[in-house]
Amino acid sequence: MKNLTISERGEQAKRASITLSACSSELRNNALKAIAENLFEKRSQIFEANQKDMDKSIQADLALPLLKRLKFDAHKLDLAIDGINSLIGLPDPLNTTLMAKELDQSLDLYKVACPIGVIGVIFESRPDAFVQISTLCLKSGNAILLKGGHEASETNKILFDLISAATQKVGLPQYWIQNLESREEVNALLKLDQYIDLLIPRGSNAFVRFIMDHSTIPVMGHAEGICHVYIDATADIDNALSIAIDSKAQYPAACNAAETLLVHQDCAKTFLPLFFEKAKENAIHIKGDAATRAIIPVELATTEDWKTEYLDLILSIKIVDSIEEAIIHINTFGSGHTDCIVTENTENAKTFTTLVDSAGVYVNASTRFADGYRYGFGAEVGISTSKLHARGPVGLEGLLSYKYKLIGQGHIVSDYSEGRKTFKHISLDKNCPL
Amino acid sequence: MKNLTISERGEQAKRASITLSACSSELRNNALKAIAENLFEKRSQIFEANQKDMDKSIQADLALPLLKRLKFDAHKLDLAIDGINSLIGLPDPLNTTLMAKELDQSLDLYKVACPIGVIGVIFESRPDAFVQISTLCLKSGNAILLKGGHEASETNKILFDLISAATQKVGLPQYWIQNLESREEVNALLKLDQYIDLLIPRGSNAFVRFIMDHSTIPVMGHAEGICHVYIDATADIDNALSIAIDSKAQYPAACNAAETLLVHQDCAKTFLPLFFEKAKENAIHIKGDAATRAIIPVELATTEDWKTEYLDLILSIKIVDSIEEAIIHINTFGSGHTDCIVTENTENAKTFTTLVDSAGVYVNASTRFADGYRYGFGAEVGISTSKLHARGPVGLEGLLSYKYKLIGQGHIVSDYSEGRKTFKHISLDKNCPL
Repeated sequence: MKNLTISERGEQAKRASITLSACSSELRNNALKAIAENLFEKRSQIFEANQKDMDKSIQADLALPLLKRLKFDAHKLDLAIDGINSLIGLPDPLNTTLMAKELDQSLDLYKVACPIGVIGVIFESRPDAFVQISTLCLKSGNAILLKGGHEASETNKILFDLISAATQKVGLPQYWIQNLESREEVNALLKLDQYIDLLIPRGSNAFVRFIMDHSTIPVMGHAEGICHVYIDATADIDNALSIAIDSKAQYPAACNAAETLLVHQDCAKTFLPLFFEKAKENAIHIKGDAATRAIIPVELATTEDWKTEYLDLILSIKIVDSIEEAIIHINTFGSGHTDCIVTENTENAKTFTTLVDSAGVYVNASTRFADGYRYGFGAEVGISTSKLHARGPVGLEGLLSYKYKLIGQGHIVSDYSEGRKTFKHISLDKNCPL
Repeated sequence: MKNLTISERGEQAKRASITLSACSSELRNNALKAIAENLFEKRSQIFEANQKDMDKSIQADLALPLLKRLKFDAHKLDLAIDGINSLIGLPDPLNTTLMAKELDQSLDLYKVACPIGVIGVIFESRPDAFVQISTLCLKSGNAILLKGGHEASETNKILFDLISAATQKVGLPQYWIQNLESREEVNALLKLDQYIDLLIPRGSNAFVRFIMDHSTIPVMGHAEGICHVYIDATADIDNALSIAIDSKAQYPAACNAAETLLVHQDCAKTFLPLFFEKAKENAIHIKGDAATRAIIPVELATTEDWKTEYLDLILSIKIVDSIEEAIIHINTFGSGHTDCIVTENTENAKTFTTLVDSAGVYVNASTRFADGYRYGFGAEVGISTSKLHARGPVGLEGLLSYKYKLIGQGHIVSDYSEGRKTFKHISLDKNCPL
């Protein structure tokens, strides 16, 4: 396989994707089982390879959080295998009949779920993502080209070898999964729109933006997570305090952590001094607009702050005159990821969730819930801030397309255009027989 | 409005889209009714404007088929008004609950249909498309920026004025619909990814490809329609003949017309001489591979033919050894639009519809059925050969996105990450209350 050009790899992936799309649910589940077994049996090889990556990265002075992400130990392997087992337990997403309609006598139209085809995934140092994404693609019948971070190259290589060997043994086409190792291959990959149907970049905003700007292939990825918590005039103050703290501090480096708190002027004098104390306990650094600074002693926030994803224990606060001002602020400065209203007023909850143009619109719940696992999707390939195809946390469903199967008995259009026959268009309650 | 820059127009459209997304089903239907009435009352103004466009185009020696498309007469107005009335009759696609799940006690997640937001439509000379697309967008709650062909500028301008006036009168936000008149505005439009969520170009392949290559906004449009009819060894010969003729000749300029006929070697000697006669009656010019030419006297087809969308009464024919060869040919040279198998063998029908990677995979039915009206979608905004978001004929459903509404009572993530609470993930059978 070393000798294939990137274009040949794409072509092989395309062919494999067609074969894979026709593999039975049983075969795909057997392949998942074989992967889980092989990873467990050969775990010492994985840990050894990972140790080499760790040693290299420690020598290269990689930052501690990155080292933590790079580490692939028994605990992470257990989680990966648990993930595979739960995928096996999920119903097969393929070949589901999404719509059935009798167009005319003996002319039936079915909309049937099918894989997207070939997916290119480019991700940074976390090797557990390699297992998670490739098994999601397998369950959904998609071929995959992966390129991991160079820090994790030894780990990714052994993971690839084990997954590829296990799935070939049970009968999957060889090229359904391919591992890319050089940066040149990635640059070439970005132009392979002939063979690759979707790119999923996982990493920093700058990285995702780079891929979007340089690829002719559709990209699924979130650009930024500038999330807001709006404390309505009618908010329950205890809820407001705990949701604001959790949304900011529970894991500030995540894209679903809040960056800006909007506070209605009618509750600002009660809420802000209490929040100021809580924030101190949680080491949150606050920046506020002039109205906020008239109540609590904080650094001044500028327009730049409303546009900033801190990914850190920093929070900007703005006092608003009305829910309308809060909504306009969010739709202007937010990134369409996840935004929350804390309120006891149902009308305001409705107004907020209708008018805020984001993938997640929450009432009285922390923005940190925006996550495939918490939504009950099993694993996720990422969180989409695009409004097309998939929005929000993306699980198996986001890896599917559909096709229309039309089954007739010699039906031709001229019979209809010349008035000899007319359409019935009756909804059917049955599955596609093919 | 004349004084707004294109960027300001985009911004206004974005704002209007938020207001429009919250307009009730009743208000949107009233607006559709007002449009239908205004178009009918002011029909003489429309016909006058269209006459100016026609006169100009006749003087400029526009080709007859284009003049036919440009003409907007009483018949086309009736069809447009019928289309609006049928849209009014369709159920509201917005705010439908697509999924409901109890994540934990009093923490409910809903996936709810919402508009995409702002849609830019660029289309060639057919002014009835102006009415059809703008009313589809209105029903689905999307704001729209339209740019029609310059040949139809007078007609489009009066249609815009009548639609805009009618909808403002019933209370829609002014800028939900905007008409662009200059080519410079289109070039600027292609870069407005900050405000525009989706572009729909309608026109020639070269035109759609140009838009795709020059825009930073997602594009919904078909690149080409290279459709195939495969005559299986077990085909009913009468079905094969009529489906092949209808797929090619019923309207050869359409994207869903067939360009290549693949014939299994076992029935080629029976089928081809009969087809040759039928093709002659229908003025179809045939090109064939060497094996075909051994049976019927036709011009030689080359690899270039397998890649060509003739959009004319020309058909290429290839004899294949097996259904597998037919499928590989289609997946190699086809455009993923619509492909048909004529067969009496259910297993072969299943193999074909599973392995052919196209938006429409047909059994014993003409490829010409690939159309939103024939599928019973009401009108269509176009046919998508993309595999993401919408595939095949795109009606109202393709103009929708969704958002996740999460309704809690002060729920925070740290309770779950620290083990004080666990998720339930129970499917709910109810609609979102907000």
